[in-house]
Amino acid sequence: MIGRKLAQKLADTGTLNGQSITEMTLFDVVEPIAPSGFDGLAHLLTGDLANPQTAFELVTGKPDVVFHLAAIVSGEAEQDFEKGYRINMGGTQNLLEAIRLSGFCPRFLFTSSLAVFGTPLPDVIPDTFNATPRSSYGTQKAIGELLVNDYSRKGFIDGISLRLPTIVIRPGSPNKAASSFFSSILREPLKGETAVLPVPKRTRHWFASPRMAVGFLIHAASLDTAELGWRTLNLPGVSASVGEMIRALKRVAGTNSADLITEKPDPLIEAITCSWPKAFHPARAKALGFEAETGFTQIIQAYLEEEGISPTSITGRPS
Amino acid sequence: MIGRKLAQKLADTGTLNGQSITEMTLFDVVEPIAPSGFDGLAHLLTGDLANPQTAFELVTGKPDVVFHLAAIVSGEAEQDFEKGYRINMGGTQNLLEAIRLSGFCPRFLFTSSLAVFGTPLPDVIPDTFNATPRSSYGTQKAIGELLVNDYSRKGFIDGISLRLPTIVIRPGSPNKAASSFFSSILREPLKGETAVLPVPKRTRHWFASPRMAVGFLIHAASLDTAELGWRTLNLPGVSASVGEMIRALKRVAGTNSADLITEKPDPLIEAITCSWPKAFHPARAKALGFEAETGFTQIIQAYLEEEGISPTSITGRPS
Repeated sequence: MIGRKLAQKLADTGTLNGQSITEMTLFDVVEPIAPSGFDGLAHLLTGDLANPQTAFELVTGKPDVVFHLAAIVSGEAEQDFEKGYRINMGGTQNLLEAIRLSGFCPRFLFTSSLAVFGTPLPDVIPDTFNATPRSSYGTQKAIGELLVNDYSRKGFIDGISLRLPTIVIRPGSPNKAASSFFSSILREPLKGETAVLPVPKRTRHWFASPRMAVGFLIHAASLDTAELGWRTLNLPGVSASVGEMIRALKRVAGTNSADLITEKPDPLIEAITCSWPKAFHPARAKALGFEAETGFTQIIQAYLEEEGISPTSITGRPS
Repeated sequence: MIGRKLAQKLADTGTLNGQSITEMTLFDVVEPIAPSGFDGLAHLLTGDLANPQTAFELVTGKPDVVFHLAAIVSGEAEQDFEKGYRINMGGTQNLLEAIRLSGFCPRFLFTSSLAVFGTPLPDVIPDTFNATPRSSYGTQKAIGELLVNDYSRKGFIDGISLRLPTIVIRPGSPNKAASSFFSSILREPLKGETAVLPVPKRTRHWFASPRMAVGFLIHAASLDTAELGWRTLNLPGVSASVGEMIRALKRVAGTNSADLITEKPDPLIEAITCSWPKAFHPARAKALGFEAETGFTQIIQAYLEEEGISPTSITGRPS
C-alpha cells in the first residue's frame, strides 16, 4: 500500500532530489500497479527477492535511489518461520549484496517497524532505546537495520532505516492483523458502516497517515547523511489513545459516527496492542526535518483527501 | 583462549548443572586442544562453521549445552567483509538452523561483545541502551543476539547472549588488536619486560578476567530462563582507567614495575578506544547472580593464579 502510494507520488512530482525521474522499477511478489501519468520508463517486475539472481536483475539499471519496502507481514513471518527469514532477512541481504557486488552506491531507504521494540517499554521511548523484538518479523527488521547501517558505514550503500509509525487509516477492508481495528474503527464509520473495537479506549499507540509515510520516505531520500552516524531513525508520529481517535472521528464526522463502533473486548488483541510503543521522543528525526501530523484529526482528514471522500458525504456529519 | 579455559574448567569439575559431563565436542578452525584429565568422551573437530553440513555434524550428538564462541576477530571481519559475514553471521545461523532442524532444544550460550555499542555512549550504559555497532564484527554479534533471542522465543533453543567485558590479562604476546595494550601493559611488566602504552592514562574501559568470563558462561548455563524475556545480558565488570590499572600493577608488583611502561601515543588507537564503553549498570545480570571482580587488583591476581606465576617471582615486588 505504501509502495503503491510512493510510486504514484514520485510519478506525480516527476522529480526526486531536484532530478527528474527517468526510470522506475517496481518489484513485488504480485504484479505491481503502474503509477498513472508517469513520463519516464516504468518496469513492472514480479519475483522472489529470496532468489539472489532476482536481486541482481533488479539493480542492473544501477538506480540512484532504492526504496526497500518488501516484506512478509508480521503474522505470516510468525506462522512460517522459514519463509519469514528467507524473505525478510535473506531478501534484504540479497538486495544489499547485489548492490555491493554491482559496484554502485545508491541512496537506500529501508522501511523498518515499531515491531523492533519489545516490552518492557517506557511510556515515551527515547532515540537511544534498545530494540528487543518479540516477533520474528521485528527480529528480521532489526537485522535489516543493522545490515543497512553496516553496508552504509562501509560505503556500499548510502542507507537509512525508517521505523515507521503504525499507518492509519489504511484504505480497504478489515484484515487479520492485530492492528486492523485502528483503521477500521475510523474507516467504517466514515462510510456509515459498523466497526468492532476489541480493546479498551485507554489503549495508546503511535500513528501516522499513509501520506505522511510516503513523505518520510521522500524526505529521507534527500537527506544529507554525512553527519548521520547510526542509520536508523525513530520517526515522529501522533501518540493517541483509542478514546482520542474516536473523539477526532466525532469532530470530523459528527457525534453519531461513534455510535457505529461496538466495543467487543478481545483479550488476545488487547494483550498484543498493550505491548506496543505508546509514544516516542524522536529527537534525531525531528532535528533532520521529519515532521508528522500534529493530531488525529489531521490523520483522518489526510485519509478523506487521499481517498477522494467528500466531507459532506459523511454520514452523521453535522451540517 | 576463553574456549580452551572453559573446556578445561568443565573437565576439572566434571559436572554442569549438577549433571556429570559424559561427552564434550570441541570445534575450531584449528585443531582444538583437548582438556587434560577429562573422564568423559572428548571429540576434537576442525572445520568451517560457514558450511551448513559441518554445523549439522556438530550437533548430531544433541548436546544438552552448546557454547558458541566461534568468530572471526574484529580486525579480520573489518578487513574481509565477506568472510566476516560468512563466518560470524552465516556460521551462527548455520548452527542455529542445524539445532532447529535436528529437533532438540539445548541451552545455548552465545558470547557477544561490547563491540555492539557505538558512539555516542553515556558514561554508564544502562541495560536498555541501544546497540549501534560501528564495526562489521559488532554488527554480526548484534545480529547473533537477535537470532538467539528469536530462536529462544520460538522454543528452538534455550539461549542467552552474554556481552562479555574486555578480557584482561590475556596470556601470550601482544597482538594487532587495538585492545592488545590493555593486557600487555600489565602482562609484560609482571614478567619484568617492557610494554608500550599508546593511549592517555585517563582512558577508561570495562574489564573482566578470563577466569571470570569462564565463570559467566558456566553461570549462564545453569540460569532459570523462564522469566528472562530479552535474551541478551550486559555483564558486570570492573570499570578502570589505564591509570587505575597501573596503580593496581604497582600494588601487586611494586612501584618499579610501572617504570617498564613507556607512553607512546598512537592517535588511531586512542580514537578507537575512546569510542568504547567506559562502564555499565548491568542491573539485569546482577539480579541473575552474575558477579565480576570488584577491582583491578583482583584481575591481576586472577592472572597470576591462572598462569601459575608465583607473586614472589615478580620483578620489583616489594619484599
